[in-house]
Amino acid sequence: MEKDSRTVGILGGGQLGRMLVEAAHRLNIKTVILDAPNSPAKQINALHPHVDGSFSEPAAIRKLAAECDILTVEIEHVDTQILQELEEAGTVEVQPSWKTIRVIQDKYLQKEHLTQHGVSTAPSVPLTDRTPAGLEYIGQQFSYPFMLKARTLAYDGRGNHVVASAEAVPAALEALTSGALYAEKWVPFVKELAVMVVRKKDGSVVSYPTVETVHEENICKLVYAPARVGQKVQDAARRLAEKAVGCLWGAGVFGVEMFLLPDGSLMINEIAPRPHNSGHYTIEACPTSQYEAHIRAITDLPLPAHSTGLSTPSTNAIMLNLLGPRYLTVAHAALSTKGATVHLYGKGAAKPARKMGHITLLAGSMAEAVYQIQPLIDLADGVTPTATPAAAPTTKAEPNPVVAVIMGSDSDLPVMKAGAEILKRFNVPFMVSIVSAHRTPDRMVTFAKEARAKGIKVVIAGAGGAAHLPGMVAAMLTLPVVGVPVRGSTLDGVDSLHSIVQMPRGVPVATVAINNSTNAALLALRILSVEDSELGRGVRAALEKYVDDMESEVMAKVERLESGGWEEYVVKK
Amino acid sequence: MEKDSRTVGILGGGQLGRMLVEAAHRLNIKTVILDAPNSPAKQINALHPHVDGSFSEPAAIRKLAAECDILTVEIEHVDTQILQELEEAGTVEVQPSWKTIRVIQDKYLQKEHLTQHGVSTAPSVPLTDRTPAGLEYIGQQFSYPFMLKARTLAYDGRGNHVVASAEAVPAALEALTSGALYAEKWVPFVKELAVMVVRKKDGSVVSYPTVETVHEENICKLVYAPARVGQKVQDAARRLAEKAVGCLWGAGVFGVEMFLLPDGSLMINEIAPRPHNSGHYTIEACPTSQYEAHIRAITDLPLPAHSTGLSTPSTNAIMLNLLGPRYLTVAHAALSTKGATVHLYGKGAAKPARKMGHITLLAGSMAEAVYQIQPLIDLADGVTPTATPAAAPTTKAEPNPVVAVIMGSDSDLPVMKAGAEILKRFNVPFMVSIVSAHRTPDRMVTFAKEARAKGIKVVIAGAGGAAHLPGMVAAMLTLPVVGVPVRGSTLDGVDSLHSIVQMPRGVPVATVAINNSTNAALLALRILSVEDSELGRGVRAALEKYVDDMESEVMAKVERLESGGWEEYVVKK
Repeated sequence: MEKDSRTVGILGGGQLGRMLVEAAHRLNIKTVILDAPNSPAKQINALHPHVDGSFSEPAAIRKLAAECDILTVEIEHVDTQILQELEEAGTVEVQPSWKTIRVIQDKYLQKEHLTQHGVSTAPSVPLTDRTPAGLEYIGQQFSYPFMLKARTLAYDGRGNHVVASAEAVPAALEALTSGALYAEKWVPFVKELAVMVVRKKDGSVVSYPTVETVHEENICKLVYAPARVGQKVQDAARRLAEKAVGCLWGAGVFGVEMFLLPDGSLMINEIAPRPHNSGHYTIEACPTSQYEAHIRAITDLPLPAHSTGLSTPSTNAIMLNLLGPRYLTVAHAALSTKGATVHLYGKGAAKPARKMGHITLLAGSMAEAVYQIQPLIDLADGVTPTATPAAAPTTKAEPNPVVAVIMGSDSDLPVMKAGAEILKRFNVPFMVSIVSAHRTPDRMVTFAKEARAKGIKVVIAGAGGAAHLPGMVAAMLTLPVVGVPVRGSTLDGVDSLHSIVQMPRGVPVATVAINNSTNAALLALRILSVEDSELGRGVRAALEKYVDDMESEVMAKVERLESGGWEEYVVKK
Repeated sequence: MEKDSRTVGILGGGQLGRMLVEAAHRLNIKTVILDAPNSPAKQINALHPHVDGSFSEPAAIRKLAAECDILTVEIEHVDTQILQELEEAGTVEVQPSWKTIRVIQDKYLQKEHLTQHGVSTAPSVPLTDRTPAGLEYIGQQFSYPFMLKARTLAYDGRGNHVVASAEAVPAALEALTSGALYAEKWVPFVKELAVMVVRKKDGSVVSYPTVETVHEENICKLVYAPARVGQKVQDAARRLAEKAVGCLWGAGVFGVEMFLLPDGSLMINEIAPRPHNSGHYTIEACPTSQYEAHIRAITDLPLPAHSTGLSTPSTNAIMLNLLGPRYLTVAHAALSTKGATVHLYGKGAAKPARKMGHITLLAGSMAEAVYQIQPLIDLADGVTPTATPAAAPTTKAEPNPVVAVIMGSDSDLPVMKAGAEILKRFNVPFMVSIVSAHRTPDRMVTFAKEARAKGIKVVIAGAGGAAHLPGMVAAMLTLPVVGVPVRGSTLDGVDSLHSIVQMPRGVPVATVAINNSTNAALLALRILSVEDSELGRGVRAALEKYVDDMESEVMAKVERLESGGWEEYVVKK
């Protein structure tokens, strides 16, 4: 960030280049673009002339190098021979290293390199015998289906072909005619994950959160940040991505795509040596975007680890690509969508599947983000949400319950009803059900184990007699459980009270008075009011009003008692 | 956002214009700039040629108008005569209206207009008699000190002069020689607040949060969003700003600066008919920035009210202007500062007090934001933080307690100790104190009323006998209160249990087992784990581990019992 001192040359001027230029502007770092005239990145930089031509032409790359101190890429399909020459001649610094770009360009070399460094990827073999017999031999080794892939110049699904069976072999050879090929064992993944990793000049790495990507017809459609998988898988994905990028050369940001397998293990799919579609969300969701991180890494500016996390613990983002002719319709709708930010790329004709822009939607919870973005996905898909019930997302229907009111028997309902009414009055989403510790123990276990994952924040459990439900549920989860002792036909409810309140050390149940489900609900509301969210804030204000109302009610009685006298009061009451 | 259909011309190409262009690019909206060659806004738009010249030159404005569908401003010191002509001739649309710009340009007319519309501003009179006698007459009316101000072309403190006393009158007349003047009554404000208001084409308004601005030598230095004042003042400031902008004409974003007086009332200082320094923070802190809001408003694109709030309930921002020669040092340090984003403007020489860039710092609480930004303020001020202990922020010391453990008497401490130990083990900040409902009722009231404001999220209250403390505290606040019945010398604790648990409907106490403060602490942790914050997330993970450990402990006993036999177990236990 020494003013006007360094210029970065970018091979490629598409949307990734454009967002790199935007980030560089904010740091007063000059950029010069090599691409066709008026490409998206060039449009937003009038500081000086750019280089017209292709990022795979040696002469054009030489011309760019003459203008710059550092060369970098927004696409990996560049001429690495000329990059090597330029760097070895000391003309310009290349980041990331041409070695990295060269290894990554050839998907088979990339896989081989990763495997050699102990990084898990799908088993692959180069196709040396380009005949039906050669492919059938691979089919026998890998079993069908397997993937036939172009080693170079493949992206957004181009150059990939599924070989479904021995009968499909001839068609596969016809589909991929040019360039070297390799075969990849089929990976029966359950989800696709991705991690952006920044490699600094000193070889150290920092990573962004693990995200989940959804592809449609081999093109990235949606990115969920963070990925909707457990913390352990998220952490493992970041470690794997960091390890993979650690064994490459030079500085910059890398997009690491991987597969999550049914057994929870991870396998790298491929790496991009540049900003990546799966990292667009970082512009809004992280303190430092992948674009600024790339600029900082290649210019050796500081990038502490706190720059690449999600901005807050409650930051959840979904990125939706705006593809093809419908992009303006979706973008326009996004202007009115809560939490959405629109990015258009200044591209020309909106050919089908062309990336024209994207939307990033932020929300305080992933459920909220999913709910808000669904109408935009429907628009992008060209479906009318109301006309196609199958397309309606389950999360759209009702807000997810945050309080679960459960009871051991329907005979407890007359007591528990009052609590439910309080929750309804406070507009807090809740569910009511019967879960008997003694008669449906399996159901109780399932309920308890799944509650937090389903979004439940407080459980209210009512039971009578030898009342085990509240304590048993409390033993099986870590959410606050409020216990309501229900008065049975004998012992006046003291049996229930003692069964619920006298829990052993380690398993607390928040017990309220006998039959007082009103207070159980109010306690749940107080607990929700602690939460740092819009719901918590709303509940807090409503609780304050409730207390005020209670006071006014008593004060009205005071007034009536004092003005009318106690005798009249007793009669009228 | 109809592609390539409309072009916005901007009079002025400084940093505000630059950030407008950045926002317009993301919406594929074309902008053409009128300003000196290579001005900050022009640097980032290479889509077509711009207009060189001054935004106050009629010929240059005509030339710009010929290229555009809509004209707007990033500075109010423009020629409104020509704007009026152009709009009346139907050549171009002007947003906001030239009428608005004309009224605002002349600060005295602005004040008069606001006063006529019932908007509170500082009492002002035009200076008709430009002599010592004329000024002294005003001094007698307003009393000293009062402000002498240029009616036009004043900004960043230029054109403002304090008239301290009758003796200072001649100096004041010498200081402000050119242009019409007016005098303003001195406003003894306690804080300066500002609100960005967006006026739409239909005349409706939406506003951003109320922020607090800190000026140094009449130049904006810091902006705190939201303002560190109560909610009522924040709301009143927004209403006042919306009212003020409501009585102007045309579309766009407006910066409304105001004074907060000692009695809590508000008074408008001045209005800017354009994006404003006090709204830079919106780029990072709000779903839609003031720049994009301006573009949307003048092009009649949707801007729902949820676009202009803070992104999350826990979003807090501080903006620090980067002024003069030290700007790169501060910007470089900001790259390593948690939550900070750097914006540089691509300007030339860093003359003293010139706005070269700004930093926006986001944090989950204002205390955290203040703590993180202090070293950058010190750098900007050229002071060494270690050498000036007075500059050390008070918020640095201890984390605020989130759990309060209170008890009716020190004799309860042996029972309550176990709970405190659990909280300590989970690294949750907590406080322990004695608050007796019966012996220190006032102290109890104060504690209860202040608890939430002080950051307490859960109260654990222990008491014995006729145990009133938990219920009384619960009655006085809306936080969750966990009650621990402490066993006294008679009745085995059942007296305490029933005193605590049998609360009337409306006031819940989460009661745990007699003497079981361990469970009270664990319940508090479960409640904290519901919270959507870093603390909540950490506590959640620790609770899961606690449950696992408990299970392992029992399983070890199972192992010992089953392998060693029950008789040996009994002996060894």
